[in-house]
Amino acid sequence: MSYKNIAHQKQLQLEAQIPPQWRLNASQIPPGLLSPADSITNTGQYEAINVLEIPRICGLLTPEELHITEQYDIRSLLDAIRERKFTSKEVVEAFCKVNDLVPCSHLPVSLTSHSQRAAIAQQLTRCLTEPVFEQALRQAQKLDDHLQRTGAPIGPLHGLPVSVKDSFHLAGVDSTTGLAALASRPAAHSSPLVHLLTSLGAIIIAKTNVPQTMAALDSCNHLFGRTLNPLNRRLTVGGSTGGEAALLAMRGSMVGFGTDIGGSIRIPAMCTGLYGFKPSAGRVPIAGTQDAGSMAGKGRVSLQPVAGPLARSVADLGTVMAEIVPRAELFSEDGIPGVWSGSRISYAPSVRGGAAGVTQPPSFGERQVLTIGVLRGDGLVEPLPPIAKVLDEVAQLLRHTPGVRVVEVPVPPALSKCQGIAGRLMGVDGANPMMDLLEATEEPLIPWLRGRMKRGRELTLAQVGALQAQRAQLEREMLAMWRTRSTTATAGWARDIDAIIHPVAPHPVPELDRYNAVGYTSSWVLLDYPAGTIPVRAFREDDLELGKEMTAPVLGSWDKANRLLWNQKTVDRRVYLGSPLSVQVITPTQHDYELYQAMELIDRAVRGEARVSAML
Amino acid sequence: MSYKNIAHQKQLQLEAQIPPQWRLNASQIPPGLLSPADSITNTGQYEAINVLEIPRICGLLTPEELHITEQYDIRSLLDAIRERKFTSKEVVEAFCKVNDLVPCSHLPVSLTSHSQRAAIAQQLTRCLTEPVFEQALRQAQKLDDHLQRTGAPIGPLHGLPVSVKDSFHLAGVDSTTGLAALASRPAAHSSPLVHLLTSLGAIIIAKTNVPQTMAALDSCNHLFGRTLNPLNRRLTVGGSTGGEAALLAMRGSMVGFGTDIGGSIRIPAMCTGLYGFKPSAGRVPIAGTQDAGSMAGKGRVSLQPVAGPLARSVADLGTVMAEIVPRAELFSEDGIPGVWSGSRISYAPSVRGGAAGVTQPPSFGERQVLTIGVLRGDGLVEPLPPIAKVLDEVAQLLRHTPGVRVVEVPVPPALSKCQGIAGRLMGVDGANPMMDLLEATEEPLIPWLRGRMKRGRELTLAQVGALQAQRAQLEREMLAMWRTRSTTATAGWARDIDAIIHPVAPHPVPELDRYNAVGYTSSWVLLDYPAGTIPVRAFREDDLELGKEMTAPVLGSWDKANRLLWNQKTVDRRVYLGSPLSVQVITPTQHDYELYQAMELIDRAVRGEARVSAML
Repeated sequence: MSYKNIAHQKQLQLEAQIPPQWRLNASQIPPGLLSPADSITNTGQYEAINVLEIPRICGLLTPEELHITEQYDIRSLLDAIRERKFTSKEVVEAFCKVNDLVPCSHLPVSLTSHSQRAAIAQQLTRCLTEPVFEQALRQAQKLDDHLQRTGAPIGPLHGLPVSVKDSFHLAGVDSTTGLAALASRPAAHSSPLVHLLTSLGAIIIAKTNVPQTMAALDSCNHLFGRTLNPLNRRLTVGGSTGGEAALLAMRGSMVGFGTDIGGSIRIPAMCTGLYGFKPSAGRVPIAGTQDAGSMAGKGRVSLQPVAGPLARSVADLGTVMAEIVPRAELFSEDGIPGVWSGSRISYAPSVRGGAAGVTQPPSFGERQVLTIGVLRGDGLVEPLPPIAKVLDEVAQLLRHTPGVRVVEVPVPPALSKCQGIAGRLMGVDGANPMMDLLEATEEPLIPWLRGRMKRGRELTLAQVGALQAQRAQLEREMLAMWRTRSTTATAGWARDIDAIIHPVAPHPVPELDRYNAVGYTSSWVLLDYPAGTIPVRAFREDDLELGKEMTAPVLGSWDKANRLLWNQKTVDRRVYLGSPLSVQVITPTQHDYELYQAMELIDRAVRGEARVSAML
Repeated sequence: MSYKNIAHQKQLQLEAQIPPQWRLNASQIPPGLLSPADSITNTGQYEAINVLEIPRICGLLTPEELHITEQYDIRSLLDAIRERKFTSKEVVEAFCKVNDLVPCSHLPVSLTSHSQRAAIAQQLTRCLTEPVFEQALRQAQKLDDHLQRTGAPIGPLHGLPVSVKDSFHLAGVDSTTGLAALASRPAAHSSPLVHLLTSLGAIIIAKTNVPQTMAALDSCNHLFGRTLNPLNRRLTVGGSTGGEAALLAMRGSMVGFGTDIGGSIRIPAMCTGLYGFKPSAGRVPIAGTQDAGSMAGKGRVSLQPVAGPLARSVADLGTVMAEIVPRAELFSEDGIPGVWSGSRISYAPSVRGGAAGVTQPPSFGERQVLTIGVLRGDGLVEPLPPIAKVLDEVAQLLRHTPGVRVVEVPVPPALSKCQGIAGRLMGVDGANPMMDLLEATEEPLIPWLRGRMKRGRELTLAQVGALQAQRAQLEREMLAMWRTRSTTATAGWARDIDAIIHPVAPHPVPELDRYNAVGYTSSWVLLDYPAGTIPVRAFREDDLELGKEMTAPVLGSWDKANRLLWNQKTVDRRVYLGSPLSVQVITPTQHDYELYQAMELIDRAVRGEARVSAML
């Protein structure tokens, strides 16, 4: 069957899953939400509309439902459910009122509210692929019965509405990842992460949209159309976890799980002003997810994508990671043992000086100083002026934060080689399994992929081995980035930089289909360094004035392409006004809890000192 | 140049490094230590001689030197050096007396004694490849000066004599791994593990022998000849860390480091009655070691060998691991963060029961019970009667150990598939890089490898990817081995088996060149489960009486081959008398500290209850 027919059927199915009473009036939907097919190509028609306020003003949500979906973070919502704040009579009424399909009983209102809000988000941004509202409501009923009966929650995430990227399997539901060839093939088993989350009491309310092939940066495909950025329809929502980002920005879910190999968690978080956390491999199970378009075992021989959360605060990231990390090894073959605690940042002790003497560097708790390195670029692409500026602003705020030492980190020569190796590892199978899938239904490439993706030769094992050997060499050289002193390895040394701040991308959130390279994000996957996105502030009028044109010599082709997003001849810079500017935080391999701590500290500095209000 | 000439030169070099005053008289060397070349092929000439006592009776070591080399474990020796028990006048005299080459000053006697003893071991077993006695003595002088000057040791392993397998690089020294083609190519840099050890104050005194290709189980090659088992020259010393095992059994070093992909740490430990510890990947750096005979990057795309220690007690293993594990990430790109502590065995908590309720299994500290599983085979090869018997004896001892619960672990069907996948992953490069090296000097294969190794086709990337995908599936299925209850994944579950005991091999220490398959050891590398060898007791007369012939149906070709080591027509079982019988202990991935704890507990049970004296 042709992809067009499959897409048509899939779209009808999807629409049928939005209950009629949760539908917006045509008048409430801003003009310009094109048909799925048109949304892919007719990007010129989109206006710079922000739809974040629509759920509040559309009238579908009661004041209580607005309260529930807007006034809680994960911890306080879980507490409220446990304390039965939302299982009283008002709650039951709220359910009955908004959902005739569901028996008027003990469904947690938070769930319905979030499902409802997710349905609204879908109508405004096309963020969903597989809403599972009915199934979620049934599960909520079970949880509520349990709480009523036993007085105890089912687990630490009892009743938490959660969404996942389409590539995670939910038994009985498609995992198309936007590919027509994978439609109507419901998954036999749920992914280990889904088992883990549901065992803790979380409720999956929907799966969310991704780019065709998942190897693109606009979340756009022929089955579900293009997910729009709810902050500004002319700007990309990013990818590949773009549907998740749109849904969370619309407050249609409490937390979402994506995957990241080139930046697929951190980039959509940047595009929508969210917090994204790309852990080290093994912290959040990614095993058992849809991989039909890749060579079997590809991640294990080339570059391993990782799973991780997107959320609306660092605290929310921490609340879910605290429950997942210690259990990853029990639920999935790719999980490693982990704890989510520690006395702030405290690296392993080392000896210094070799024959010259022994000193044990004190842990953070003792030395009272957290050292944050500022890594301003990657040596290949110069950040555009507003990106350099916002990184510098964060560095300044940190310099004035008690207990923080800020140091400049020179760009390691090895870092400039990481992006190239990462890119080649991502393409070891020559894209042939994916092209086979596309051709099976005559599915054309989306605009972002045209010219970027074509069939190639599968590399030989020796070629991939050589790439992995180069990667090992880069990993070794990069160890030195975490030291401020230059000491020889023979003398022994201690790591004395705790975390690094770096741009998420060398440019602001670009217009549709204009996202460029992923070097600022993919390198940290190559190195398996955990890395997260923190939104800093909105792009302002005075950011336009900066560096009218860039005068530094062009570094190369990547740099040249990047400047097209700033050169007044090739872009109207005013499109960036109001868009989020973010910063990336990075720690060494498997120091995920320390990344969380560093993000918390940096986020506090940004929000406190700069008096920047939350952008959402 | 032909391998014969290269080997001749290398042997002269090696001999020149044994100081004349450390040489045994010809009369002190038991007959039958053939020339290196003859040692490879004329195995029929070896008699069942035990040479362990010769250092004590040869007269080369003073009573004090014997005391130092025989009466200390690592912890007490380090204490004695720190407390300057061995820097008094007697110590200086001891040095001067035994070594005219070294200035009579403050060299730690322990070092000289161990070097000396290592030299004796070499003369009896051919265990060394690169003695670096002079360099070690110079380093000892520096350490001693430091201690004299500052009153403080240079690091936690100050003065500890350590040996390493030949594949670890020492700057300025060959890393031939026994291959003629790699002779006279001194390493430019030391391996990260060597840097780590020396930064802590340890002193490398020698590198030790390995099998040709390192992919064989008799440590025998044309450069250095065959390493003999000091317990019994008719029995194999095992491989590939065989030189290390012989040296440690002779007490010529305090601790040795090997590598393990098919069992190369655990098997030589078994063959010589030592303790061997194969950690999870990342605990002990293996990066930056000799890999000239393998495809570049092979470990990263196929199966990753791991480094780890061999020692004479569980405590000694723990003493060195406690210093290495927290620093691995600082010295090597393959190191992961780790701590070497914990409140006995305590796995991550999980929730149970899903919708049926929540229970957090108490940690070991609370539940007061350590659960040890007994895994009696691998489904492919039936253990020979004495192996089954000794495993059962250990299980019985544990059943009578307070706080221990013993459960039977049925052989998981997935386990029977592990050995095959591991074997195919080890051979992905078709052995061509190795065959190229061998042919460059016309070096023939050693007997063990004949018929087992030949050029093959390098696998395609897709083939290796498919193997890795199968491996992931096996890893997933194996998760269930650690549970005694059968629960569905959706219901959530807790691991309730803390460690497993299993044979190291399905047969006793075999005669030269008769070691068979590695399924009992390689599977745990495939799964990245840490695993260690504990010696239990010597093979006794009454073990001969057991199961005169095995009557159970043959399971397959591996099983058939294994029985040749027991069938009275194909072996004289009396050759096993007095040889060590061991047990393997296994924990889940990255639970290395828990493995150490379990080994400690099991070793105490074995030594206490069974009143088995140390075999060395």
